[in-house]
Amino acid sequence: MEDQIKTDILQLIGESRDAFVCSVDELGFPNVKAMFLAKHEGYQTLWFSTNVSAARTSQWKNNNKASVYFYDGEHIHGLMLVGQMEVLTDDETKLAFWKPGDEQYYSLGATDPDYCILRFSAETGNYWGQKKYLFHV
Amino acid sequence: MEDQIKTDILQLIGESRDAFVCSVDELGFPNVKAMFLAKHEGYQTLWFSTNVSAARTSQWKNNNKASVYFYDGEHIHGLMLVGQMEVLTDDETKLAFWKPGDEQYYSLGATDPDYCILRFSAETGNYWGQKKYLFHV
Repeated sequence: MEDQIKTDILQLIGESRDAFVCSVDELGFPNVKAMFLAKHEGYQTLWFSTNVSAARTSQWKNNNKASVYFYDGEHIHGLMLVGQMEVLTDDETKLAFWKPGDEQYYSLGATDPDYCILRFSAETGNYWGQKKYLFHV
Repeated sequence: MEDQIKTDILQLIGESRDAFVCSVDELGFPNVKAMFLAKHEGYQTLWFSTNVSAARTSQWKNNNKASVYFYDGEHIHGLMLVGQMEVLTDDETKLAFWKPGDEQYYSLGATDPDYCILRFSAETGNYWGQKKYLFHV
C-alpha cells in the first residue's frame, strides 16, 4: 500500500467516533448499525463494546462474517473493511476495556454478563478517496 | 406505528443526503457503502442511481437481500430498513431520474448502458430514537 493511502486511511479511522458495522442476519439479510469505535490497531483490528443480548451480537456468534465502514461525508471519502467479528466475553478483556461511566449501560460493572467486547479482524479493504483503492490486509 | 415515530423516521430520511446501503457479496460477507439518496416514497421505497458495472450492483443482481441505514450522529438516532434491492435498467426509469450534470458520471447520457437505478423495498425496520422500535412495513 502506498504511504499516502495508508496515512489517509488511518486518519479517517482516527477522526471517526462512529463506525457502521455490518452483520448477516439469520435470514441472510445484511444488517448495519452505527457503533462507537472503542479502540483500533491500525486498520487491521478494531474493537467495540456492546451487549451480549444485542441482536447483532447473536448474529456474529452464528456467522462471524462482518464489515466495518468509516465515512467522511464532507469529502465523500469512505473505507470499507471486510473480515471476521469475534465476541469476547472473558473478564480479562472486559476489564481492560471498562471505562468510568459504563455502569449506565452495564449495571453490574466490568464483569456484567451482558457486557462483551467485539473484535473485528480485517481481511480486505476498499478505500474511496481521491480514487478507488482495493487492498488485502 | 405511532404517529410520532413515523414523523421522526420520515424526518430522519428527509434530512439525510447519505444512506449506508448494504449487500451480501459472493463469499457471504456483508458489504456497505454510502450512497446519495435519489428519491424516497415514505420509508417503504427508496431509489439510488449508480453504475451497472459497480461491484455492489452485481451483488444485488445475484442476491437481492439488502439493507439501508440512516444516521443522525448528533442525536445518535438511527434507522435500519431491511428488504429487497432491484436493479432497474429500462430507459423509462433512467430518463425519469436523469438530472443535468449526471453526464459527468455517465458520458452517454440517460440511456448510457452503464447507468442504472436501484429500487429498495423495505420489509422490516429498526428505529433507534428515544427508544428502540421494531416494525414491519
